[in-house]
Amino acid sequence: MADKSSPSPEPMRKRVETYIRKLQHEIVTSLEKLDPNAPPFKRDAWIRPQGGSGQSCVFAMPAQEDGTVAHESVLEKAGVNISIVHGTLPPPALKQMRADHKTLPLPEDVSDGLPFFAAGISLVIHPRNPHAPTSHANYRYFEITEAFSNTQAAEKDTQKEPKVIAWWFGGGADLTPSYLYEEDAVHFHKTLKDASDPFGSLLYPTFKKWCDEYFYIPHRGETRGVGGIFFDDLNELEHAKLKGSAEAGESAGAGSKEKLRPQTQEEIFEFIQSAGNAFVPSYVPIVAKRCSTPYTPQQRRWQLVRRGRYVEFNLVYDRGTKFGLMTPGARIESILMSLPEVARWEYMSDLGEDKESEEGKLLEVVKNPRDWL
Amino acid sequence: MADKSSPSPEPMRKRVETYIRKLQHEIVTSLEKLDPNAPPFKRDAWIRPQGGSGQSCVFAMPAQEDGTVAHESVLEKAGVNISIVHGTLPPPALKQMRADHKTLPLPEDVSDGLPFFAAGISLVIHPRNPHAPTSHANYRYFEITEAFSNTQAAEKDTQKEPKVIAWWFGGGADLTPSYLYEEDAVHFHKTLKDASDPFGSLLYPTFKKWCDEYFYIPHRGETRGVGGIFFDDLNELEHAKLKGSAEAGESAGAGSKEKLRPQTQEEIFEFIQSAGNAFVPSYVPIVAKRCSTPYTPQQRRWQLVRRGRYVEFNLVYDRGTKFGLMTPGARIESILMSLPEVARWEYMSDLGEDKESEEGKLLEVVKNPRDWL
Repeated sequence: MADKSSPSPEPMRKRVETYIRKLQHEIVTSLEKLDPNAPPFKRDAWIRPQGGSGQSCVFAMPAQEDGTVAHESVLEKAGVNISIVHGTLPPPALKQMRADHKTLPLPEDVSDGLPFFAAGISLVIHPRNPHAPTSHANYRYFEITEAFSNTQAAEKDTQKEPKVIAWWFGGGADLTPSYLYEEDAVHFHKTLKDASDPFGSLLYPTFKKWCDEYFYIPHRGETRGVGGIFFDDLNELEHAKLKGSAEAGESAGAGSKEKLRPQTQEEIFEFIQSAGNAFVPSYVPIVAKRCSTPYTPQQRRWQLVRRGRYVEFNLVYDRGTKFGLMTPGARIESILMSLPEVARWEYMSDLGEDKESEEGKLLEVVKNPRDWL
Repeated sequence: MADKSSPSPEPMRKRVETYIRKLQHEIVTSLEKLDPNAPPFKRDAWIRPQGGSGQSCVFAMPAQEDGTVAHESVLEKAGVNISIVHGTLPPPALKQMRADHKTLPLPEDVSDGLPFFAAGISLVIHPRNPHAPTSHANYRYFEITEAFSNTQAAEKDTQKEPKVIAWWFGGGADLTPSYLYEEDAVHFHKTLKDASDPFGSLLYPTFKKWCDEYFYIPHRGETRGVGGIFFDDLNELEHAKLKGSAEAGESAGAGSKEKLRPQTQEEIFEFIQSAGNAFVPSYVPIVAKRCSTPYTPQQRRWQLVRRGRYVEFNLVYDRGTKFGLMTPGARIESILMSLPEVARWEYMSDLGEDKESEEGKLLEVVKNPRDWL
């Protein structure tokens, strides 16, 4: 799909890898600066036997035994992981992928499967203070390439790039507070909007709506949090959700120069970097602001009940988690790093029943997603 | 399928309902006697708007705020629920049911769905002490009946029983310790075997194996606990797992009177009652024995990590939970009652790494299921 006639400095695979390595470093450094007294993130490089590698950066306080807090660290559990993997998607996985990505030109009936490449950064931050929200972000690049024929295998040493059948970017960032501070939700969304708008006016509103739809827990009738952005299948083709994208810059009339969406791979990658770079300014100031707010045992209890919801969403509905759990040889510790250190389930909990309570106000907003801007 | 010519005292639906109501009362009473100083179970009758009703009996200590233990109750969280529900299975649910129950004579292509009836008891007991194991049991009866035609609707007041297309029993009981006491595992299994053997020598060995297969967490390579019994699709037809069942009492030779499996609905229901009645003697003495064993904060921490595995199994793999979460109008509080009060996830936990430690010994047995008898 890449235009082979234009001078391409480096393949997109390599550029994405370089970017997510840099972003991981920046995010981890920024989180470590929040709490200089806490131990640093644990860096953990790993190799995938079937192809590829990654680096986990994980924060946890040394085991706290009976749930008592040894040190009031700002973070309770956090992970910022990157992975750059490749291999062959077996036919069932390709079938699932066709179902999940209907608009992509994925071939049918490929009996031997097809080679894939995936590079991404994925992070989840669970602060300790119930007034400081959890946040998650993920940006990823995916490629499906032509089957590696025997002829090509023989020519392997020529380092010829395999032909890309389909590529796309996906990702997003979202905020999950236990207590609602409207100004925090506004700041988070505003930062993401500002990072998205230069690349097309459709991006933020489309991806905010998609976020509310994706992070939804049907059996609770609640969204996981207060939203953010979420997108998938973003490439040069027409996009099912980016309505009007086909006419961008054309049908909008001679006078209109409004950019609706990024059109080229280059523009899309620039948007990804802009959104990725927005994570620290969108989130870290909120944690800095809330991490010293005094809290009661009941507020901690409510936070753990909300973390139970987080577990429910991730284990029951999250596509990435489910895909990971089904993938033989996947690194389970990395996949389940998103789970909080502690979660709580109360039968018929009284917390949040009073609509005027702070807990009730959070419930109201997860049951009725809001536009924050 | 029931023999209409024989004098049937009451329809099986009614007999199962009567039995599970009595069993629920016995189990709850027995658990309450374990800890006379704790508050009683909370009884909670509910009505299903789409048809049927149930009663939840749930134990929880009054909210304990910051995870600190206000009173060392024997149980931490427990639920003993019954439900007796009926309605129409829509075509997608029927399709799923055909896939899950391949040996049952469920019709295909029923565009309007089919009426069902289901009655069952389901319980999960999470004691507080890490030396006392969690246990779960479930016994259920299911019927699919002929579609209710307009003619029948007109004759509704005649109280004619609908024709049963398929019926079956399912259920089982299993034990999930955080620390392995072999004698407890032996006692639990021995009690279940003794309750099963009179109804056929194939039951216990077949259902013990099925239990280890069912309560398996593929992404961890671990069973949920140390086993028990598990079965489904048990009716008068040949059963895929009860090998040799077709020849019971026939091919075994003239001299052999060994009973391999229950053959009639009456016998099967007797087996169900025997297994259900075995729950209290199989489990309650173990809790009584272990609930005062002193424990360390690290042992509590390990218990919460194991409860994290319990959450993973129930939310990701358990058929009943998944079916419940997908069912519109299902009572979520009852379905998720099985989740522990608190669960914990540690990244790359050091607990259990030492194979000689008590935690390591538990890991060994969940990675390599054992025959206890």
